Amino acid sequence: MKKVYNFSPGPSVLPKEVMLKAKKEFNNFNNSGFSILEISHRDKSFIKIIRNSEKIIRELLLVPDNYSIIFCHGGARGQFSAIPMNLFHSKEKVDYIISGYWSKLAAQEAKKYCLVNEIDIREFTDKEMKLKSMEMWKLTKDSKYVHYCPNETIDGVAIHPTPSCFYKKIFIADYSSSILSHPINIKSFGVIYAGFQKNIGPSGTTLVIIKNDLLENVNYFTPSILNYSLQNKNQSMYNTPTTFSIYLAEMVLKWIKKKGGLKRINIVNQNKSKILYETIDKNNCYINKISQKNRSIMNIVFHMQSSFMENLFLKEARKNGLFFLEGHRKKGGIRASIYNAMPISGVKKLSRFMKKFAIQNY
Amino acid sequence: MKKVYNFSPGPSVLPKEVMLKAKKEFNNFNNSGFSILEISHRDKSFIKIIRNSEKIIRELLLVPDNYSIIFCHGGARGQFSAIPMNLFHSKEKVDYIISGYWSKLAAQEAKKYCLVNEIDIREFTDKEMKLKSMEMWKLTKDSKYVHYCPNETIDGVAIHPTPSCFYKKIFIADYSSSILSHPINIKSFGVIYAGFQKNIGPSGTTLVIIKNDLLENVNYFTPSILNYSLQNKNQSMYNTPTTFSIYLAEMVLKWIKKKGGLKRINIVNQNKSKILYETIDKNNCYINKISQKNRSIMNIVFHMQSSFMENLFLKEARKNGLFFLEGHRKKGGIRASIYNAMPISGVKKLSRFMKKFAIQNY
Repeated sequence: MKKVYNFSPGPSVLPKEVMLKAKKEFNNFNNSGFSILEISHRDKSFIKIIRNSEKIIRELLLVPDNYSIIFCHGGARGQFSAIPMNLFHSKEKVDYIISGYWSKLAAQEAKKYCLVNEIDIREFTDKEMKLKSMEMWKLTKDSKYVHYCPNETIDGVAIHPTPSCFYKKIFIADYSSSILSHPINIKSFGVIYAGFQKNIGPSGTTLVIIKNDLLENVNYFTPSILNYSLQNKNQSMYNTPTTFSIYLAEMVLKWIKKKGGLKRINIVNQNKSKILYETIDKNNCYINKISQKNRSIMNIVFHMQSSFMENLFLKEARKNGLFFLEGHRKKGGIRASIYNAMPISGVKKLSRFMKKFAIQNY
Repeated sequence: MKKVYNFSPGPSVLPKEVMLKAKKEFNNFNNSGFSILEISHRDKSFIKIIRNSEKIIRELLLVPDNYSIIFCHGGARGQFSAIPMNLFHSKEKVDYIISGYWSKLAAQEAKKYCLVNEIDIREFTDKEMKLKSMEMWKLTKDSKYVHYCPNETIDGVAIHPTPSCFYKKIFIADYSSSILSHPINIKSFGVIYAGFQKNIGPSGTTLVIIKNDLLENVNYFTPSILNYSLQNKNQSMYNTPTTFSIYLAEMVLKWIKKKGGLKRINIVNQNKSKILYETIDKNNCYINKISQKNRSIMNIVFHMQSSFMENLFLKEARKNGLFFLEGHRKKGGIRASIYNAMPISGVKKLSRFMKKFAIQNY
């Protein structure tokens, strides 16, 4: 098999050793003669997996005891509705910080359920695009909640610090594309959530970590499968979970632990992104105007001078075993998603290719 | 590997040849060097899979052109909310036929969204339990919709005929545990839905087949991921689908087609259930009081004279390679789920075991 690297934004590359183990036991889980896919979620072997997944998440993210860990069906987009349905009421004002594509969509969905104040923190100059720093956010006086997205997968921008307590608001964050890539101070948040398909496992499930005192405010019309309180009471088993996603997630979580946990993985991720941003900044043909302090560690986006050159770049990259570097269909350009499971060798190979391409074509 | 049979009610056994192929290409889908799990749902290779899945469902079930096929996140329980959220309004009367555990839960969830008339069709005598036949259902005069469950997985009862048009109502059916096990006259229904994890594929996704003129009645507060109209416009890609479930489902659908389609598979299923019901009826130690015409073809339930005997039965069955025969945790007893992927050899082995157990222990 040829050596290939997968820069897909999600569903995305999974750790190689996890995938090899999953393949090995695919038709014979725990020497049972069955696949994990064929086993009831009520069987003790699966219950062990789902409970252990929670346990490792608690360890890795240092989740305090007064927070619950819930697995929900669907992706983050499901939580765009579940968050307001579980937390806000129709007359309530909620601040939604807009930093890119996904935070905007989250705000739009929330408008069905509460009074949304959209606060756009993007500042554009000819030279760069930057985000207003957190202490400069103009939050609404009588809002209780603030929703934001720490890493915008499509835009390649990030809000790196966690909220400070001087805001006396409850912060909610969509961590879909940066969960488990670095330590998070969970205590700063009321709720964080993250679709599985970047750093946790296969698509179809979303992780929700919620402070227990927020569990009892749910609107009557909330569908049971999106009701955090009910899901929590039923230990994420109210509706048959996507068992295979959780099975693979447990293996990914063990892999992160084995790699040294989130502090260690953060150092590797910082190094990986540094290699690519340096390559971009040192070669004029690659353009990324995002301010240094707002650059994403997970999704490195850049443009070239023409879409002709971008297409040539993508074509040549594929020939070199570098796949799925296309920018989002609504944004164009190039995007390298380098989640936890992307080895540094893949990043180095992309960097070498970028340098060579720049020399040959400019 | 020892020869074992899996009678799990769901997630449940998948066709052996599907699982072997999935294992073979697990880390190298289409010779790409990647797993299907690691490929974006927007990639043309996945789009081909999801479109082909719809196409085969349309062929197998003879779905008319004025019906849409949608894949939703979650299991049937998600549809217990999605159905009323998409179709009914708060002042609308809807008949919910109660025939067992799941139809009752569907009715309970719907009460959040509309005026539910529960119509219990179960009739108990000392000798047997039977369901009122469809033409005897006392539907509410001014109801527009009737919801029912053709196969109750837990209770082992079934409503075999499809609705007749003399009722001038729109019928909605939860086909979770009997979809694709026999032909269905789709035209008799406004909507049918079915969780994947019995006859379609792994857990996490639900199939919805809906008449197009029912797509535009959605309530404003419906979460986008449960909005049929939006999901349909986005070809089931509004929220990243559970790609692996759909990938395996496509293979299962191809397998059903190869087996000769639904008429052929129905004959096999009828034979399989006949073997087990005959074994039950000919051996006094096994008790199934369900009327012949209401017996499920998919889930064969029975009790024994004591839970001591049932536990012994289950223990001995496991020793003989017959697994997951426990009845539902809220009902007890024994349940053999014999979906499409259960080979007749497994059913025959269970029957032989039952006969032997009866002789040895009674």
